[in-house]
Amino acid sequence: MKHNTSLAIHGGAGTLVRGMMTPTLEKAYKKSLEHALNLAYDVLEKGGTAIDAVVKATTLLEDSPLFNAGKGSVFTAEGTHEMDASIMEGEQLRAGAVSLLKGIRNPILVAKEVMENSEYVLLAGDGALKFAEKFGFIHEGDDYFYDKLRFEQWQEIKDTEKFQLDHSPKKDSKFGTVGAVACDRIGNLAAATSTGGMTNKRFGRIGDSPIIGAGTYANNNTCAVSCTGNGEYFMRNVTAYEVSALMEFKGLSLKDAGDEVIYNRLPKLKGEGGLIAVDRSGRVTMPFNSEGMYRGFKNSVGESSISIYKD
Amino acid sequence: MKHNTSLAIHGGAGTLVRGMMTPTLEKAYKKSLEHALNLAYDVLEKGGTAIDAVVKATTLLEDSPLFNAGKGSVFTAEGTHEMDASIMEGEQLRAGAVSLLKGIRNPILVAKEVMENSEYVLLAGDGALKFAEKFGFIHEGDDYFYDKLRFEQWQEIKDTEKFQLDHSPKKDSKFGTVGAVACDRIGNLAAATSTGGMTNKRFGRIGDSPIIGAGTYANNNTCAVSCTGNGEYFMRNVTAYEVSALMEFKGLSLKDAGDEVIYNRLPKLKGEGGLIAVDRSGRVTMPFNSEGMYRGFKNSVGESSISIYKD
Repeated sequence: MKHNTSLAIHGGAGTLVRGMMTPTLEKAYKKSLEHALNLAYDVLEKGGTAIDAVVKATTLLEDSPLFNAGKGSVFTAEGTHEMDASIMEGEQLRAGAVSLLKGIRNPILVAKEVMENSEYVLLAGDGALKFAEKFGFIHEGDDYFYDKLRFEQWQEIKDTEKFQLDHSPKKDSKFGTVGAVACDRIGNLAAATSTGGMTNKRFGRIGDSPIIGAGTYANNNTCAVSCTGNGEYFMRNVTAYEVSALMEFKGLSLKDAGDEVIYNRLPKLKGEGGLIAVDRSGRVTMPFNSEGMYRGFKNSVGESSISIYKD
Repeated sequence: MKHNTSLAIHGGAGTLVRGMMTPTLEKAYKKSLEHALNLAYDVLEKGGTAIDAVVKATTLLEDSPLFNAGKGSVFTAEGTHEMDASIMEGEQLRAGAVSLLKGIRNPILVAKEVMENSEYVLLAGDGALKFAEKFGFIHEGDDYFYDKLRFEQWQEIKDTEKFQLDHSPKKDSKFGTVGAVACDRIGNLAAATSTGGMTNKRFGRIGDSPIIGAGTYANNNTCAVSCTGNGEYFMRNVTAYEVSALMEFKGLSLKDAGDEVIYNRLPKLKGEGGLIAVDRSGRVTMPFNSEGMYRGFKNSVGESSISIYKD
């Protein structure tokens, strides 16, 4: 049986507030999302796997300086870039993740190596870097990750105890993450998430992005999910897996499960953010309770859209 | 309403195989478990909180050289000790965890500080150590963690690519972890887990123990859970939260949910291990699919037991 293929991507919930968003910037964001969406959807259309499609989308978003992941990663309290990423496939529930990874262009590719070529699920810090080097990943210099806007965000708060979710509070809080979910022709699901963390973060903080069940989850029986928001709340709620559990154990539809998690359960803890999810029929849902979420989807029924706010 | 109080503890699934267990060793394990169980249950009996009780039990097990956590932690590939711990309370779903922490006597106490005195959930590596130092934790020298048996386990495989779950395969695989779950007088639940990881582990591997939802979970609406086993499988299944989800969304009892997870869902991935769980009525379940699990429980109905194998 040939399945409907479907792909959804996000570039983070908690966008620039409408007042800060210029037409030029909006155009740049949408163009970058569209580019990733189209190239990754091509993978599915040519018969590629869900894993290959979410990796394609995620690496392209990691390569854009607009999103807080890979090249666009924010500065930590020590002026470095510590990146997290995770990936999971829904057929055998295999998963891989890296956390506090420094100097690697595409953390999602290292997460994929962990999934496919190790007995581990999650590797962190210098150890994760050693693993990446063993698999031939090249170490990028600091200049690759330097961005004037990110640097200024950091300078604003670097001598304080504050940390922030990408953009400064004046400009609204932005939960910088990228992610993708897909359903391929044979009905396999996959999810991927990648982030540069929080500006001025310290103490080796790990958020939900590299945590299977919190930021990322995939299971062919239910759905594939990638989350974005203030990670601590997503970890305490085990948000990505919660969507799947509501479908499997309570019989909710993909849309109802996503809505329950984002509009009811997450706000109970004062958690803010959103998620993208896809099921085996190729249905997509993209709920968020923040002002906006950079997002897009495309499927084999011919539907496609790119959005930022609740239009 | 005064609730039945109840406490369960574990010292790891995958014990010494029966043939390797001498009467003297068995007595030592049981004595150590009994000591932790009694002192931690005293906390509940005197009106202490579930959090205080699980912390008491876990620190005592961390202080014993018999279990792979705290003092008894195994050696990594680099001859160091990297410890993980997590804690969660079921009323407000607050949680704290540390991973790859070096040189701290009781990692569970640092996890508690993360939960109570930070905006974070999970801190790792040198950053977690800095956080601990900021909160006045003393750095122990290597001699505190040195143990002849652990050292020999490491020497046996240190120049290989192998890593192992505490005891050597010849002696059966042992999944070294300690943990505790409790229900206190006012019906609040809490769970805690702590581990020294796997002998000869490398690449900054993180298992399920510090992951909320995988190794540890607590929610007053359902249960408190602490897991032990080969962590990667528990992470892929999101095991601790799975027990809670089966109760909340499918209406299963604590026992049925624990059994479903350990005897059905985990073996599907070839996962091995067990868990301890308690609900708000003070009921306890302690399923495991390995040969044994160091475990014990005590409650206000006057029941109490310490066991190692499926007696």
